[in-house]
Amino acid sequence: VLLKVETLQRTGSFKFRGAYNRLVQLAPDERKHGVVAFSSGNHAQGVACAASLLGIHATIVMPSDAPRVKRESTHAYGAEIVEYDRRKENREAIAAGIAEKSGAIVVPSFDDRHVIAGQGTIGLELAAQAEALNCAVDFVLTPCSGGGLSSGIALALRGKSPGTQVITVEPEGYDGARLSLLNGERTAAEGTCTTIADALTSPAPGVLTFGILQALGARGVAVSDDDLAQAVAFAALKLKLVVEPGGAAALAALLARKLDVTGRTIAIVLSGGNIDPDTLKRCVDIAA
Amino acid sequence: VLLKVETLQRTGSFKFRGAYNRLVQLAPDERKHGVVAFSSGNHAQGVACAASLLGIHATIVMPSDAPRVKRESTHAYGAEIVEYDRRKENREAIAAGIAEKSGAIVVPSFDDRHVIAGQGTIGLELAAQAEALNCAVDFVLTPCSGGGLSSGIALALRGKSPGTQVITVEPEGYDGARLSLLNGERTAAEGTCTTIADALTSPAPGVLTFGILQALGARGVAVSDDDLAQAVAFAALKLKLVVEPGGAAALAALLARKLDVTGRTIAIVLSGGNIDPDTLKRCVDIAA
Repeated sequence: VLLKVETLQRTGSFKFRGAYNRLVQLAPDERKHGVVAFSSGNHAQGVACAASLLGIHATIVMPSDAPRVKRESTHAYGAEIVEYDRRKENREAIAAGIAEKSGAIVVPSFDDRHVIAGQGTIGLELAAQAEALNCAVDFVLTPCSGGGLSSGIALALRGKSPGTQVITVEPEGYDGARLSLLNGERTAAEGTCTTIADALTSPAPGVLTFGILQALGARGVAVSDDDLAQAVAFAALKLKLVVEPGGAAALAALLARKLDVTGRTIAIVLSGGNIDPDTLKRCVDIAA
Repeated sequence: VLLKVETLQRTGSFKFRGAYNRLVQLAPDERKHGVVAFSSGNHAQGVACAASLLGIHATIVMPSDAPRVKRESTHAYGAEIVEYDRRKENREAIAAGIAEKSGAIVVPSFDDRHVIAGQGTIGLELAAQAEALNCAVDFVLTPCSGGGLSSGIALALRGKSPGTQVITVEPEGYDGARLSLLNGERTAAEGTCTTIADALTSPAPGVLTFGILQALGARGVAVSDDDLAQAVAFAALKLKLVVEPGGAAALAALLARKLDVTGRTIAIVLSGGNIDPDTLKRCVDIAA
């Protein structure tokens, strides 16, 4: 089992990769108008950090009840935060309004070719690192929400390691990629239950991301909240790595034996570590 | 600030390095008789794992009230565990008795040149990694108990990075290295108070280790339990790394400003991550 540890990535998740790659594509006069994104989580921090490094103004549209720690961290990267009431207002509309007024470019969180390519650098690195270890990887298990990460990895591996299959892992009730790949067309999961994987709540994959996942033969599995909590505890106490519930989804699928991996070489993406202290404590309790 | 992350080392701490280096020095007929060590913690796991890799029988003398998780983990590496009552029995005598009866070699936890040299590989790697980053390191801050880790690093840096000073960090009340370096002779700290740094409870440095630290111009600082807990929480929530209290001592010294590092390049050794779940939860609470 190989681990790709994106919890140690800048901003604590892989999201920095896609955000940075999207932002470096901007022409000089586009940069002047800044960028806008909507997210209460890892994408917000990725865009804010990338914008700060590139000297671009970033506006992040965030629900007014977003966790304090995430707002502070986004603010610390120098982004301007615009709050909205998520029961009454539409964040896409707010972001579009800001873009129209200021000329800022909207940075989507997954369904964008530059964002997908940025996340795909994980696949390039994984292929090179596995080759250096003389490993032929049979499966890459990766957490999945909108599919930017998994489709980027699938694209990169198509060239670098065509024998590797990508397996998306989603929380039960938010397993739109799994359903879409089964049905052969974009299908939304129910998306109404609660989940501790706050980073994986997109009910369906994107148009681009689903197209890539389907064309490249990915398949999906789903894990429960208990599977996720057990994986967070395992990561903390055995691997000594702090992983947020969504970031631990692929590890959860392995530990809960959602896939027969007997005799196979697999790679697990630990995609993010931005967990709040109470959730970390709760997960550690489950294993104690 | 550069981090040397020994929490991700085999067995979850740097102790594997010294144990392995001691064991590979054994002649073939010495190996047959096995090794014996006394420790309830990281050294036990280091010796057990190294012995298992080299096909050597290991006996670990452990207090009967050692934490279950540490006993299980030592046992999982294939070591034989001999329990003793630490209120009535002497572990050194028990280990010596086993050695005499079986011909097993005693593996000391710090005051041994091969053990010191093994821990010193951290210094070699640190120097090479800093050079690759074009960094001249002014200070290496390292947790210290008996001094094997710090003296090994000091020795390695003497050759590879002579401008770097080693700073030992100990818990208050167990700051024997700090006192010894101040006094110019081996001095025991009081060693009677409680500390959450269970891995750093040696009241004084060893004869060899103190000689090296003194000759190479090291100096010492001490940190409180609160400093340690804050550092464990910082490591978990900001660095996304699980570090045990003793392993976080050097980070604690930095965060608590025990040293003026303005404008300096420093390296921090995170020496171990074998924390029990309750302690992790307690530390995270402090920061929440």
